[in-house]
Amino acid sequence: MTFWNEELETMPVEELKEMQFRLLQNEIRTMYEKSEFFRGRMQSVGLTPDDITDMEQFRKIPCMRKSDLRDNYPDGLFVRPYDELVRIHVSSGTTGRPTVVGYTQTDIDNWSESLARGLTSFGVGKKDVFQNMHGYGLFTGGLGVHYAGEKVGATVIPTGVGNTDRQIQLMQDLPVTCLAGTPSYMFHIADVCDQKGVDIRKQTKVTKALAGGEPWSESMRKKLYDRTGIKAYGCYGASEFYGPMFLECDAQCGMHVWADLTLIEILDKDGNPVPDGESGEVVVTMLQKEAFPLIRYKIGDISTLTWEKCRCGRTHPRLGRITGRADDMIVVRGINVFPSQIESVIGEMPFLSPFYHITLTNENYMDKMVVDVEVLPECLPDDVNAINEMSAKVQARLKEILNLKAVVKMNLPGTLERFEGKAKHVTDNRSWD
Amino acid sequence: MTFWNEELETMPVEELKEMQFRLLQNEIRTMYEKSEFFRGRMQSVGLTPDDITDMEQFRKIPCMRKSDLRDNYPDGLFVRPYDELVRIHVSSGTTGRPTVVGYTQTDIDNWSESLARGLTSFGVGKKDVFQNMHGYGLFTGGLGVHYAGEKVGATVIPTGVGNTDRQIQLMQDLPVTCLAGTPSYMFHIADVCDQKGVDIRKQTKVTKALAGGEPWSESMRKKLYDRTGIKAYGCYGASEFYGPMFLECDAQCGMHVWADLTLIEILDKDGNPVPDGESGEVVVTMLQKEAFPLIRYKIGDISTLTWEKCRCGRTHPRLGRITGRADDMIVVRGINVFPSQIESVIGEMPFLSPFYHITLTNENYMDKMVVDVEVLPECLPDDVNAINEMSAKVQARLKEILNLKAVVKMNLPGTLERFEGKAKHVTDNRSWD
Repeated sequence: MTFWNEELETMPVEELKEMQFRLLQNEIRTMYEKSEFFRGRMQSVGLTPDDITDMEQFRKIPCMRKSDLRDNYPDGLFVRPYDELVRIHVSSGTTGRPTVVGYTQTDIDNWSESLARGLTSFGVGKKDVFQNMHGYGLFTGGLGVHYAGEKVGATVIPTGVGNTDRQIQLMQDLPVTCLAGTPSYMFHIADVCDQKGVDIRKQTKVTKALAGGEPWSESMRKKLYDRTGIKAYGCYGASEFYGPMFLECDAQCGMHVWADLTLIEILDKDGNPVPDGESGEVVVTMLQKEAFPLIRYKIGDISTLTWEKCRCGRTHPRLGRITGRADDMIVVRGINVFPSQIESVIGEMPFLSPFYHITLTNENYMDKMVVDVEVLPECLPDDVNAINEMSAKVQARLKEILNLKAVVKMNLPGTLERFEGKAKHVTDNRSWD
Repeated sequence: MTFWNEELETMPVEELKEMQFRLLQNEIRTMYEKSEFFRGRMQSVGLTPDDITDMEQFRKIPCMRKSDLRDNYPDGLFVRPYDELVRIHVSSGTTGRPTVVGYTQTDIDNWSESLARGLTSFGVGKKDVFQNMHGYGLFTGGLGVHYAGEKVGATVIPTGVGNTDRQIQLMQDLPVTCLAGTPSYMFHIADVCDQKGVDIRKQTKVTKALAGGEPWSESMRKKLYDRTGIKAYGCYGASEFYGPMFLECDAQCGMHVWADLTLIEILDKDGNPVPDGESGEVVVTMLQKEAFPLIRYKIGDISTLTWEKCRCGRTHPRLGRITGRADDMIVVRGINVFPSQIESVIGEMPFLSPFYHITLTNENYMDKMVVDVEVLPECLPDDVNAINEMSAKVQARLKEILNLKAVVKMNLPGTLERFEGKAKHVTDNRSWD
């Protein structure tokens, strides 16, 4: 059993909780001083940093949401000038407006530290050759994992996404021991290996994988292992925190949330904390973030958190699998999609009614999204070409907005289901079994 | 005038040359001990490290070539075990076999150091927001420039290649001051800005750019400036060294080759050094490389080198523009293409004669490659579909091998020009004026 930072990772729980709360008070004080946005939030409920003497007081601070980042596009929440920032990542938002996140050098270091602890916790280190198939660039997955891989001394091969033939060639030709990528891409690799007659167990040295960016299940973990001999380890994070941050350890029973960097609350519908290990809404506070405040951030995920000591010896709490969403966001091929984005595209098309329906399916864990739309009676086309042109137009615009290919199906006027009250816009027939 | 490492960058020339030679002797000693390949090269001409007492002796060491890396695919030249390597980059080679390069942490640090000096030399630092449009991943451009950008404290936006609309949006919405990318992509950005009615001078803060990855000219520099107000600075490097390494300074009269990291010889056809500032073949020796030896490496470029002190105050020598190639390699859209690669694809096609011709043109500095091929008389197809299928097949395979789109033109048997003696396979009609 090795640790990246043993003393800190195995600190007695009470000591750890005390340290966490001191860091929380410190972050609140700093952000109250530097952030007009956060000061406003505190003042709106009549709080000053001195009032935050326990968790009950802390829970009086109003929660932040994705919309706060969006409304302050591009950099309205930043509390450091650009000359103190060393990086910016950008992720697609809900209305075509992206979310922009900034990093100081300390932010980058803390991010790498978090992932370095996680990589070490499932045995990735100097001896490993680490093929990183996460996308590099504005997306946080590639660079985040890359920096951490180098930090633990692994040999990182920055293959990025795509070019499956080359990925498989490198897996065979170099002594690759660990992959990183989305779980669905791992299955795609396994499929292509089967087609090529490449036996991953015999013709490569790959035995483990960091699997993140989209939902997956225990049965996927088992299937991947049975097919390939690769043990997959889960990952949680979001660009608003820093990026991917919390990984599963060897014990594979939850993702360790480093309590010196992050405080996660799990709340019920009334905003009260649920008992340890029970399910509720995930609310994230970053404790040492410098570039902008992320305090009581409702990311919209449903999960559990337990402080029960892990078999691996780490005392930091563990987050369970994400089991649902508190809002209507869906994750398709690792990309966050809001029905409102699709609604806005439909609104742009003068020939469509406002009715639509999204159907999600998957095959070999590859997601497929079908969007049913309805032509207006007065715009009914007279030939097939015209219909195809309409759907192509919608599809192209969806691709632009979502960065995702959707199948657009044109429907006759009045044929899509109407709802009384809240419309049901999404049917998710995907299975991760 | 600011420097990244003033003492070193402005060291008196004699002192610098002495240091350079000491580093050279040291590298030769290390690699002679660690590298069977390099020791063999030395022994083949009866040399030991102790014999290398001056440049004349040094020049007796046989040169390395790209084929040495290829022949030792994937890692036969590495002198460090994988647990001492932190990264691997892979670039496409001449026969479909890629070139694999490894890095220790010191290699990565020296690479970033080299680029950090260069970025500082044309004024990029803490105050800058640096949009890096080079490709991230296995290609060295993206990550190389990224690390250096963060090192000098600029705010790096890792946009990578493509998605021009988003690039332009971010240039406007964030206080971007400097771009990095291929010169042709800068012109593409300028074109799209024109179409969108975006005035780069008025609607962005961009005033400078690092332009690398493909050949360009003084007249392109002037045109880009006249159109956009962006001053472009040249760049030289290759993944075999580390990646992009040597940049132009504010004086824009050559790329500073850091003499503590690299020794560049310029040789005539007989392998003798040309006088300072005269044109010849570029031969590169890396002086502090750890992962594998790069000693007397004939990269195939033609250029000049001068030790004349630069107006900027730096004493390190300056490499001129690359004015040609010593071999038949061509660079198309920043990708190295060898006619032999195309020849091998043609050889795979049972319906083609061995005759072919490559024609290169460009429009707005975007390269276009047309490959003329010839059908065998016995394979003459009877309809247009069959011809199209043939050309599509060749085109798809070329794309696979070259990672580049080529237009394939099918020709009737016997209609391509035959050459007595050495065939002329390439017509380069591109202009960078």
